[in-house]
Amino acid sequence: MVTLEMIFQAQRVLKDTATVTPVIKADKIGENLYLKSENFQLTGSFKLRGAYYKIATLTAEEAQKGVIACSAGNHAQGVALSAAKRGIKSVICMPAGAPISKVEATKSYGGEVVLVPGVYDDAAKKAEELMKSEGYTFVHPFNDEKVIAGQGTIGLEIMQQLPDVEVVYVPIGGGGLISGVSYALKALNPECIVVGVQAAGAPGMYESLKEGKVIELDKVSTIADGIAVKKPGDITFEMCQKYVDKVVTVSEEEISTAILTLMEKQKTVAEGAGASALAAAMFDKAGLKGKKSVCIISGGNIDVNILSRIITQGLNKTGRIANIETKVIDKPGELISLLQVIAQTGANILSINHEREDLRSEVDSCVVTMVLETRNTAHVKEIKELLMSKGYEIL
Amino acid sequence: MVTLEMIFQAQRVLKDTATVTPVIKADKIGENLYLKSENFQLTGSFKLRGAYYKIATLTAEEAQKGVIACSAGNHAQGVALSAAKRGIKSVICMPAGAPISKVEATKSYGGEVVLVPGVYDDAAKKAEELMKSEGYTFVHPFNDEKVIAGQGTIGLEIMQQLPDVEVVYVPIGGGGLISGVSYALKALNPECIVVGVQAAGAPGMYESLKEGKVIELDKVSTIADGIAVKKPGDITFEMCQKYVDKVVTVSEEEISTAILTLMEKQKTVAEGAGASALAAAMFDKAGLKGKKSVCIISGGNIDVNILSRIITQGLNKTGRIANIETKVIDKPGELISLLQVIAQTGANILSINHEREDLRSEVDSCVVTMVLETRNTAHVKEIKELLMSKGYEIL
Repeated sequence: MVTLEMIFQAQRVLKDTATVTPVIKADKIGENLYLKSENFQLTGSFKLRGAYYKIATLTAEEAQKGVIACSAGNHAQGVALSAAKRGIKSVICMPAGAPISKVEATKSYGGEVVLVPGVYDDAAKKAEELMKSEGYTFVHPFNDEKVIAGQGTIGLEIMQQLPDVEVVYVPIGGGGLISGVSYALKALNPECIVVGVQAAGAPGMYESLKEGKVIELDKVSTIADGIAVKKPGDITFEMCQKYVDKVVTVSEEEISTAILTLMEKQKTVAEGAGASALAAAMFDKAGLKGKKSVCIISGGNIDVNILSRIITQGLNKTGRIANIETKVIDKPGELISLLQVIAQTGANILSINHEREDLRSEVDSCVVTMVLETRNTAHVKEIKELLMSKGYEIL
Repeated sequence: MVTLEMIFQAQRVLKDTATVTPVIKADKIGENLYLKSENFQLTGSFKLRGAYYKIATLTAEEAQKGVIACSAGNHAQGVALSAAKRGIKSVICMPAGAPISKVEATKSYGGEVVLVPGVYDDAAKKAEELMKSEGYTFVHPFNDEKVIAGQGTIGLEIMQQLPDVEVVYVPIGGGGLISGVSYALKALNPECIVVGVQAAGAPGMYESLKEGKVIELDKVSTIADGIAVKKPGDITFEMCQKYVDKVVTVSEEEISTAILTLMEKQKTVAEGAGASALAAAMFDKAGLKGKKSVCIISGGNIDVNILSRIITQGLNKTGRIANIETKVIDKPGELISLLQVIAQTGANILSINHEREDLRSEVDSCVVTMVLETRNTAHVKEIKELLMSKGYEIL
């Protein structure tokens, strides 16, 4: 059983290792809104806390044999660094298709990476085998009381940093973070409201709580890979039943908007899981707008590839990029005339494609597809109207 | 003349307005490297400090008439917010082509924006006219002792936050920031080395110091728009001559790498000017590697459009995106065969273009252009080698 004493002990143990991450006021995003910035934590996510406390409390005999974990994400890095700090061996099983960047990061912290052919479940099976054959201690990513107590230190810090907080939004994957945090918050102030946040594409805990029992999803799909978990743990499920006031879900678009908002307004990079708590607050999923709220930005390890895609989508949505298709007569000079109209609007051409064989073009016309850099949706509308007034058809 | 008393006075005046931004250890980027994070400043850049101190010290009569400035960037926002805080009028002249986002931000802080047809120089002329006709006080972006003293408060903060700092890297546009900072640092510790950093595409101060007199560049071109200044001021030039140890330049690619590194390692968004100081430290432009160094990350107001482009370039450079061109015989099924080879390598296709009329294709072949998501440069090499072993020509 997790106790407040364990969480305070974890805080003491973590003192020289984990960063006490800042609670940052985000008044450019919303009134009374604060961010507990675990994206600034060592290893780029909160996972270090639980893994370190777990490993710090191993017996000398256990430590001597080493630890094992299965993860292609933040937990892998947390375990690797924690084991290195205690000077013991760590083995991390990952599915063979894991992003090279995660493999390299885990190795850089001193972890021994075992790439297992297949998917996550195959890697988990391999980890269990190695645990048994080599005597390693398994460090579960969430369903472990020590791990939960370690994550709970974030709750203590929030209470120390912002004692009059009214609502805390916490992302949920397997439930380790929210179990520890909600336990600590409720122990210190039972009035503090804890809202759990899941991606709509991975609502394992949300569905389990609704059903009143742990259920496993067939598949999960979300850009918030840190919380893409099929099945919550039994310990975390019970703790969520007891200590969490409400669980809400956020859409992929809401998560993307939160990521982009953090970059533009707060100059901060968050991963999908990390931004999901903010998404819930921004879109007022729990109906608690205006209350003094902390969103736990759980991590910042997002692939810049994905970040680039999110930016592009965001630019499209806010009219700062526009895709416009039209037709021109297939004779010399017609494309120039079109480009002159575009130039007149002040839009900048990012790419252009002139296609005679598009099915929508008649025998004597071509389809022109343009990606334009524009100012806002009003500007896009103005460009389209000008084109139409000059006789161009918008496809 | 700027004095230490003025800078201390500015610090007192700024106490309730400007944020004391954190000095953050960046050991994931380099040993003994720290970031003075003015991207977390209100308005997203240090410019608030100088503008606020200037406006705070206006006489009641001056204040009653209001202030004017010419800027399409961070200075505009700094002046607008500062004037609003003192409850006085501010007019900001901007060239008509200024990004809508900057116009909107300035208005949101309470500034009255005048869009002037033409370029920056036209806007500056208009500002001078209005200053004379309306009696506004002109707030210069850098060549003003009060403004310089305000920026100098960053030097005081660095000395308070990291008293044993050995080197401070400071971006230079017109020279206001570095004049104030170097004066404060040298006054408190003459041993502290101050390195000025300019974009190689806008080396006004660098060239002026080399020539021994203020010179004006014909044109400037850099993604670091915050330091794209043609001509330094006479006050800032003299202060740089006296208090700056060395001025170095950084390339566009070095600035981009610094921006990407800040995002990936520090989870922080910086604009080009803000990242340039770090670029100088990362690429050891001053030959001072290993010394306890602070880089002033001067601002974070970067257009996400540009950020997206920088990410794409960075991904290309590190082999996480690859552009591959090859040829296939122009008959059914040939593109499928090519795609099967690509699938086998684990690369993900981002875009593909199959062009029969490319000049490089023979009568019976087509050119195929692919953008692939890849793991790293080794992976790209592996894909190209596999393609060649299967008889594909890499164009």
